[in-house]
This record gives sequence, structure tokens and C-alpha cells, in this order.
Amino acid sequence: MKQFDYGKVKEQLKEALDKKRYDHSIRTMRTCIELSKALGCDVEKAKIAGLLHDCAKGLEEKYLLMGYGLSDIISTDLIDSYKALVHSPLGAQVAQREYGVEEEDILNAITYHTTGREGMTLLEKIVFVADAIEPGRMYEDIDKIREIAFVDLDKAVIEVMNANIRHCLQTKRLVHPLTVISRNHYIKKERFKGETI
Amino acid sequence: MKQFDYGKVKEQLKEALDKKRYDHSIRTMRTCIELSKALGCDVEKAKIAGLLHDCAKGLEEKYLLMGYGLSDIISTDLIDSYKALVHSPLGAQVAQREYGVEEEDILNAITYHTTGREGMTLLEKIVFVADAIEPGRMYEDIDKIREIAFVDLDKAVIEVMNANIRHCLQTKRLVHPLTVISRNHYIKKERFKGETI
Repeated sequence: MKQFDYGKVKEQLKEALDKKRYDHSIRTMRTCIELSKALGCDVEKAKIAGLLHDCAKGLEEKYLLMGYGLSDIISTDLIDSYKALVHSPLGAQVAQREYGVEEEDILNAITYHTTGREGMTLLEKIVFVADAIEPGRMYEDIDKIREIAFVDLDKAVIEVMNANIRHCLQTKRLVHPLTVISRNHYIKKERFKGETI
Repeated sequence: MKQFDYGKVKEQLKEALDKKRYDHSIRTMRTCIELSKALGCDVEKAKIAGLLHDCAKGLEEKYLLMGYGLSDIISTDLIDSYKALVHSPLGAQVAQREYGVEEEDILNAITYHTTGREGMTLLEKIVFVADAIEPGRMYEDIDKIREIAFVDLDKAVIEVMNANIRHCLQTKRLVHPLTVISRNHYIKKERFKGETI
């Protein structure tokens, strides 16, 4: 992995994002570091993914107009339906082209940080959970999720997905099918774990 | 539609189901009648669909062993994952072959009474909602759903889907992708309605 100039990247990110999102990015990065140390993930990669996971948030229109494409999660005709998800696959492309991230595993962690997916890597799970439990977040059950994240990351992944789905139900948002497909995958994995004990 | 012998069908259903499920079927049938009268649906069809919607419930193994197939909602390898849904597509086949129902729209209402689907017919929506609001049901928000069902059935469909998904989250059950795809369809429809007012 090539040397990553945190000072420069942070400056660039601070310039691009509004203050609230930038602060959230820094806190997510820190939680990524903590989780990586506890769970044996590559700290450097988790740090970069955590810092840049929201690099396209609030800037969707700008980056779409600049010609950044989408992905198989959000096709063009679905942008309006899933406004809150567009920044994730878009963010991976922005991280690559505007912030110089080359590692596919970091880019995937950014792509799937909102929906999750089946069979996530440790890095993907850490970014997914860190985004939801960083110290600035407040919602029902968050303390329980913060606790289990360091003990049983898969369980924390399910709990974060539950919280995300509940939020969509409350706010009348669409639920992306990939979110329930991912949750189903981890529910089945948990059941299987239970059976082998 | 050929003459339907309610006396005979009720006897047969009473014999097949346990008392709790049979009573629920009768209540669902009555709610189907009320909703149909209020909303201009074919009362006879709704009555039959309501009465027979759970005709395979608790009898999944028996009917699978008897060679009744499944459908595109639940393929054989998914039976274990979606135990609570199997009775719906299976029930349509049982209704046809064991109870003599020939009308495709009634059979579809039985097939989709648990997951829903995009673009449901009035009959399908009535059975879907009646099953969830019949007088024996008790859960959060049910009184609100009972009220709106007679005024805005699509909204009631969304609320029932929300309640179903919440129940899956609470009980660690899998959420069938078709449930969120159907909910997304009706959420989008509601949004569109809002725009045209």
C-alpha cells in the first residue's frame, strides 16, 4: 500500500464536506481504529476507509455531474428512490479518483457501508459498524451495539441492519433489498453458529 | 364462478386446522366481507379467499409430502429459511386441489397474503390487510391500521408490511425480499399520490 498523506487528505475532505459530516468522518475513523485493533484487522486500511466513507455525501449531484458513475447497487433510474444510499457506491469512486485510494478492499468497504452485503470482509464489517456506533450517534439500543461490536461483530452487523431498517420504517423510506438480503445472510450465519455450539 | 358449498368447506377446514387457526380464518373471512362491501370488491371472492387463506398452515409437511409443490416465492431450498411463509403459496395449491377453488384471482390472494407483492389487486390487498386486522389480532398500532383500512387501503397495506417487518426484526426472523420490494412499491405509490394532490 502506498504512503497515504493523512494531512493532505484531511484538508481536502474538510474543504469538501460540511462540518457535521467531517466531524462524523473523523469519529468514524477513530472507531475504525479501535475496532481494528481489537479484532485484528489492518488498522491502516480501516483508518482510510473510515475517514473517507462519506466523502461523496451531500455532494452527490456535483459528482454525478462530473461524470462519476454509479454501480450495481444503485442504477441511474434508482437514484431518486435511494437518495440516502447513492453516496456509498459513488464515494468509492470519489475516494479512488479524488483521494487516490487504490486498494479494492478499502473501496468495497466504502461501497457497502450503508447496505452491507452478503459475506462482508472484516474490513467491510468494521466500517459498516463503526459508522453506526461512533460516539456522535444516538439511537435506541446503541449502547448494546457498541458493547457487542468488540465481542461479536456479526451480531453487531445484524443489530445495525435492524436499526437501519427500523429507521426506514419510521421515516417512510424505501428499504433497499440488499439490506434485507445482507441481514438474512447474517441471521442464517448466527443460527448456524448456534447449532455448532 | 361455480357455487361454493360453504357448509362443506367449513367442515373440511375445521377438521384440517387446529381450533385457533380455524377461528382466525372465520374472523378473517368476516373482515374480508366488511372491507369488500366498503371498498367495492367482489364479496364472494373475498369471502372464499379469507376463509381459506391459511388452509395449509400447520400442515406444511403433510402437504409437501403429498406432493404439492411450491412457487417462485419459496423454492424448495428456501423452505427452512421462510417457514412462516410456506403456507401461503402452498395454501393456494391446497385451496385449488382440496377445496375446489378454480379462480386464479382468489388463488393469488392466498399466495401473496403473507409477503404481498407489487401491484396487488383490490382482492389481494383486502385479504392481506384483513388477515392482519381481524378482531383477534393484537399488536402496536393495530387500531390505527383498522381505521385507515376502510379509508386508504394502500396506506393500510404499508402499515401491515411495516408491522410484519418489525415483527421479523424483533423475533430474529428473515425478512423475505419480496416483502420490502412490495412495501417499496406502495411507498412510491403513496409519494406519487402526494405529488398529484
